[in-house]
Amino acid sequence: MLNTGEDTIKISVIGGGNLKTDCEEYNMAFQVGKNIAGRKAILVCGGLAGVMEAACKGAKSLGGLTIGILPTTEASSANRWVDIKIPTGLGSQRNALVVLASDAVIAIDGAEGTLSEIGFCLIYKKPLVGLKTWDIKPYRSIPYIMQTAATPREAVDMAFSLAAK
Amino acid sequence: MLNTGEDTIKISVIGGGNLKTDCEEYNMAFQVGKNIAGRKAILVCGGLAGVMEAACKGAKSLGGLTIGILPTTEASSANRWVDIKIPTGLGSQRNALVVLASDAVIAIDGAEGTLSEIGFCLIYKKPLVGLKTWDIKPYRSIPYIMQTAATPREAVDMAFSLAAK
Amino acid sequence: MLNTGEDTIKISVIGGGNLKTDCEEYNMAFQVGKNIAGRKAILVCGGLAGVMEAACKGAKSLGGLTIGILPTTEASSANRWVDIKIPTGLGSQRNALVVLASDAVIAIDGAEGTLSEIGFCLIYKKPLVGLKTWDIKPYRSIPYIMQTAATPREAVDMAFSLAAK
Amino acid sequence: MLNTGEDTIKISVIGGGNLKTDCEEYNMAFQVGKNIAGRKAILVCGGLAGVMEAACKGAKSLGGLTIGILPTTEASSANRWVDIKIPTGLGSQRNALVVLASDAVIAIDGAEGTLSEIGFCLIYKKPLVGLKTWDIKPYRSIPYIMQTAATPREAVDMAFSLAAK
Repeated sequence: MLNTGEDTIKISVIGGGNLKTDCEEYNMAFQVGKNIAGRKAILVCGGLAGVMEAACKGAKSLGGLTIGILPTTEASSANRWVDIKIPTGLGSQRNALVVLASDAVIAIDGAEGTLSEIGFCLIYKKPLVGLKTWDIKPYRSIPYIMQTAATPREAVDMAFSLAAK
Repeated sequence: MLNTGEDTIKISVIGGGNLKTDCEEYNMAFQVGKNIAGRKAILVCGGLAGVMEAACKGAKSLGGLTIGILPTTEASSANRWVDIKIPTGLGSQRNALVVLASDAVIAIDGAEGTLSEIGFCLIYKKPLVGLKTWDIKPYRSIPYIMQTAATPREAVDMAFSLAAK
Repeated sequence: MLNTGEDTIKISVIGGGNLKTDCEEYNMAFQVGKNIAGRKAILVCGGLAGVMEAACKGAKSLGGLTIGILPTTEASSANRWVDIKIPTGLGSQRNALVVLASDAVIAIDGAEGTLSEIGFCLIYKKPLVGLKTWDIKPYRSIPYIMQTAATPREAVDMAFSLAAK
Repeated sequence: MLNTGEDTIKISVIGGGNLKTDCEEYNMAFQVGKNIAGRKAILVCGGLAGVMEAACKGAKSLGGLTIGILPTTEASSANRWVDIKIPTGLGSQRNALVVLASDAVIAIDGAEGTLSEIGFCLIYKKPLVGLKTWDIKPYRSIPYIMQTAATPREAVDMAFSLAAK
């Protein structure tokens, strides 16, 4: 049974839901998930396909625990590597909850939904690391913004370092 | 690490958030939580005090896993027997998510918030067992309604039986 | 153009979404809507069929203003007597918003969804008048509960009286 | 009383909530609101200060109708140029609803919250015009993206043109 103490870190992985399973970004998400589990953290995601599925698969390859916060009211919409399924019925508005559930967020690739999640990271001051994702520039300077990483390993290292602060 | 297969049942426990810890209803919620963990199911609740705390404490007394779906944006609002903290920022509107996250729901005692959760059980056709809680009668008959139990043990038995259907 | 001063009262009408248009409850909802508009208040509802449609139709029969807070992401799901359409994409979870948008609430008939709305009225301490709707009894006494009316006219009178406090 | 037919266009204005009232962006938002009302459309916004307040003030200067979709559960948090107050209790998660309520969106200035709203415009395929706001570039091309305007007048013209499609 899970030993979840005060100090179990949770990392959310956000990104494109319709990636092909043989593309570079899918593989990066797998590596990110694997690294998160390798460091004994819990993986949180939106529970569907693409980056979410790849990250879950990576985490489960090392026996990690995965949480999927789903847009639908039905747990059955989760990919099969999600352990804890949280259906919400909120549609894309569950994106805010994916961000809130963790200590730091890693964005990989991603389209419209990912941009809304990046926005919620900034709103809730959640540490955010980008890996081949949106390039965003505010019109005026804001105190807190996304940091970028070059590799899955670096992204996870940065996320843990930021989560610990 | 948690072994969460396809068949790990989740049961939500809903009820009053401001019970005293020495009252009968608090103790009933503790027994319900303990019985849920004793049957290897995951306990879901709203993560705060009263019935939620008692049920978590009961589940942890047997080493069970507990999930708290919180009204705030901060995980720190959870009682200390919650393993997996899901902050939502939705206030009382997170009540719908407490219901959606499980296979069956047990209502114990409870006030305003519990009534909204009972409503969402009926909306989402989630099996619902009441134990010393609201007495509700629809104006016209509806196909699906709350069943009632007399003891914590019976409530958990009924919830498992209904969840399996 | 609408003259909406500080003191324009808003009344929400909640109730069953699948009533036949020739039943007593549909006609009561029409009368309630008409009385709300007759007293220059704004009618708020969930924007769909049944009680919601009847109340909107009643309000429009006197040229009143109607607001529909919709479960879908599309304004086109509103009944055609809704002036201001607020799509939410929240499904049944928009029920909380129907309650929050007004100064008092009138419940007519109603099934599962209405019960969740009654719960939110109690949570948010929104004045609530019931007209041939759920009969609810809390397990322990709570400070604030639904009042009941016998006729549409009385329901609207009570709602205005409670909203003014 | 408001004459809201099928064809009353609604335009949402999103942007920074803590602008000074004497800055260029505040004045631009005022002009945008004024132009929206001048074209007989309804102004929708988040109901608070800064860009939201300026746009409402502009719309009311021509007698337009304004809707504010508020983060709090209390209508009293709205700026005093909001006619129709829709409290949500959703905090920043009400941003999705500000986008959903209209036919097109104009983003002016803006910080973290505005970025989440831009994300929801893309998710819900809501026509979006930017005026001195975030500069965003997706990692991979997406079918639908923000268009940019140079002046308040041009922004409103573009929003109406896009809304009509």
